[in-house]
Amino acid sequence: MDFFSLEHLSKIVSGEIKGDPKKQIYNIENFAVCNSNSICFIKSKIDLKNLSSDAGAILTTSEISKKINGESNFLIVDDPYLGFAKLTEEFFKIYEKRNNAVESSLGKNISIGRNSVINNNCVIGDNVRIHDNVSIYPNTQIGDGCIIHSGVVIGSDGFGFAPVKGGWCKIHHLGGVHIGNNVEIGANSVIDRGALDNTVLSDGVILDNQIHIAHNVQIGENTAIAAQTAIAGSTTIGANCQLSGHVGVADHLNIANGVTVLAHTFVTKSITKAGVYSGIMPMQEHSDSLKFIAKLKKIK
Amino acid sequence: MDFFSLEHLSKIVSGEIKGDPKKQIYNIENFAVCNSNSICFIKSKIDLKNLSSDAGAILTTSEISKKINGESNFLIVDDPYLGFAKLTEEFFKIYEKRNNAVESSLGKNISIGRNSVINNNCVIGDNVRIHDNVSIYPNTQIGDGCIIHSGVVIGSDGFGFAPVKGGWCKIHHLGGVHIGNNVEIGANSVIDRGALDNTVLSDGVILDNQIHIAHNVQIGENTAIAAQTAIAGSTTIGANCQLSGHVGVADHLNIANGVTVLAHTFVTKSITKAGVYSGIMPMQEHSDSLKFIAKLKKIK
Amino acid sequence: MDFFSLEHLSKIVSGEIKGDPKKQIYNIENFAVCNSNSICFIKSKIDLKNLSSDAGAILTTSEISKKINGESNFLIVDDPYLGFAKLTEEFFKIYEKRNNAVESSLGKNISIGRNSVINNNCVIGDNVRIHDNVSIYPNTQIGDGCIIHSGVVIGSDGFGFAPVKGGWCKIHHLGGVHIGNNVEIGANSVIDRGALDNTVLSDGVILDNQIHIAHNVQIGENTAIAAQTAIAGSTTIGANCQLSGHVGVADHLNIANGVTVLAHTFVTKSITKAGVYSGIMPMQEHSDSLKFIAKLKKIK
Repeated sequence: MDFFSLEHLSKIVSGEIKGDPKKQIYNIENFAVCNSNSICFIKSKIDLKNLSSDAGAILTTSEISKKINGESNFLIVDDPYLGFAKLTEEFFKIYEKRNNAVESSLGKNISIGRNSVINNNCVIGDNVRIHDNVSIYPNTQIGDGCIIHSGVVIGSDGFGFAPVKGGWCKIHHLGGVHIGNNVEIGANSVIDRGALDNTVLSDGVILDNQIHIAHNVQIGENTAIAAQTAIAGSTTIGANCQLSGHVGVADHLNIANGVTVLAHTFVTKSITKAGVYSGIMPMQEHSDSLKFIAKLKKIK
Repeated sequence: MDFFSLEHLSKIVSGEIKGDPKKQIYNIENFAVCNSNSICFIKSKIDLKNLSSDAGAILTTSEISKKINGESNFLIVDDPYLGFAKLTEEFFKIYEKRNNAVESSLGKNISIGRNSVINNNCVIGDNVRIHDNVSIYPNTQIGDGCIIHSGVVIGSDGFGFAPVKGGWCKIHHLGGVHIGNNVEIGANSVIDRGALDNTVLSDGVILDNQIHIAHNVQIGENTAIAAQTAIAGSTTIGANCQLSGHVGVADHLNIANGVTVLAHTFVTKSITKAGVYSGIMPMQEHSDSLKFIAKLKKIK
Repeated sequence: MDFFSLEHLSKIVSGEIKGDPKKQIYNIENFAVCNSNSICFIKSKIDLKNLSSDAGAILTTSEISKKINGESNFLIVDDPYLGFAKLTEEFFKIYEKRNNAVESSLGKNISIGRNSVINNNCVIGDNVRIHDNVSIYPNTQIGDGCIIHSGVVIGSDGFGFAPVKGGWCKIHHLGGVHIGNNVEIGANSVIDRGALDNTVLSDGVILDNQIHIAHNVQIGENTAIAAQTAIAGSTTIGANCQLSGHVGVADHLNIANGVTVLAHTFVTKSITKAGVYSGIMPMQEHSDSLKFIAKLKKIK
């Protein structure tokens, strides 16, 4: 059985059903793309303007549900984000079953190093070189001509948790990772898979060592990223960008095409035009640094 | 034989014995908890106020030894920290022998990925999921319900060395790692084991990818840490804290419960009250950054 | 066949030959050390003053070639750096063949953990301890008494690419890694191999966890580097230096002996004298940080 009834799901989230308890739900999807076989969640009225018109069911609060026209099926809860987290645990059972059922497909002229693990339900293109001790989780696609260096992890769980009293409720990740053609990924880098959609590295992306790409990040063609840079969740990086080492990019941002970010810069807001950006504390002899900071702090 | 005589140890450190050369020493411990079967070291008079009253032997300088009352056994050296490093090499032989003698204990319903290594003398709880290519050193305890992602290393040697003329003398690490229940550790993170005591992750701690937890760090319940953050040695982080990505916390600090630290911040001092902390150089177009810095440097 | 004719190479780079098309080229080398059996590339007139006097062939522009005296063989192209990248792909075939032909040599009293991979053409000294899940690429030398922690990657491709219209042309790395005696490398650190020469860690270097050492970096004796620090390509770090955590050092710099760099500092220029250096944005309560930045930005 690869679906749950709305009634079953209502018990998982301790929610109230408005609509058809027998409704069969096959998937959990983002509210913008949710189809009639799936459930989505809405935690804020702002999201309503992008809500798909034929969602199979909607997990939300009583208040928000009243703003939604049409004959939708609802699961009414106080905390839709927590409810979402609980549902992911349930749908993860289907996700794992599907992964287990599908053998990975390996292209022609592939070289796989020793002790590298390619889990089920992966698609690897032609002429791919995977070095030693690489770990690839299920539901990963890798295009042609890619090079994956030792110690890389692809498809690990994104860092997503709903806060609950006294702790965290894990959001199980049901998306995957899509890697285009001619992508190179440096040693010990990590690419998390998406929560519901995919994490995407476009054709020609080149990543240095020890890079962190969080869940649902999208990186445009031929963008180059230097060592120990981290891109937080759901951020989109344009094409032909260059991010230097130790850069951080906060979550849910949009970085335009052709942006260069110098090393050690923390990008806290979206960047809408190409150019060179930085935010670096100048290095000085430490005694001068101390005087410099003291002087700045005295300014009224 | 799982002990050394004080006479034997005196030769290791080229030290002078005051007391009983036949005294049997089974362990090396911190001065605050040292018992009658163990030796500790004191490198500063400040430490004397916390010195255990029944240490089996004390490695220290001649000068400091004169401040200690009672009938202790002493090993007198010029550089107690270097002497300590040398003793750890000796006690590491016992440590390894003990580890080799004890098979690891694995709980119920454990899933261990391919090419993951669990060395001897570990205890893994129930319902633990260890993904592929994980490395767990001896003397690691992992509680129930934990998830350990690919490429994680737990129990590696802490980064501790005593300076010597023309180099470094390695401090062999004799502690372990204690991980509570329902802890999740992101891909390619590293948790070093303690020097004498344990490195501790409490129940419900969640770590993102590529995090560094140094020797003897203690992290309180339900604290969440984002990618590429590093906690230096012997620092204590409270419960319910949130550290964002690329944060650094210096060594030997205390961070209160409920502290949030924003990304890219370097925490140089202890934080005694809950709240939100930051220290981030603002990102600008690089030409503006250069003018901004030049302007600041001109201020008298 | 372990060489290429100049004629063959001219087709690879779509270049024009001046000189002997039958000239046999066995290697590609840096212009300063290139011998009569090798080819080098010159992309800037500045490099001419260090050009070896007996290079077997020189890949450069027509304009630069006219500045070179003597009876050299030339490959004339518009973009020598791109031509170099294309040549490395060709010489990489010889490089791989040579690596495959040479079995690794392991010293006495070596301990190799489980699932660690030592590829061909490596030399490992005596009394070396390699922990679990370590990946060592071909052409790596490790001295006596070294400790390599779990998840370390040594000898991975440096992050070098020549820009081409609509993407990147990979520079295949033909150098190696030379690690001296008594070096310790922390868990999940990565040491890339050199492009043409070697990446070098001298005797007594100690590296903490998750450190990035780029291609062609050279690190002097007994230098200590703390966690999550990154050294960019071709930088030279002196002896007896101490770099704290999250430090970045830009590429092609020279850092003198005896330099200490405090945590989170980005080193943007060479350091010519011993001392303590820093560049750290001070941590404050976030509301104070915001006021502090706003105040600084208002200064005329």
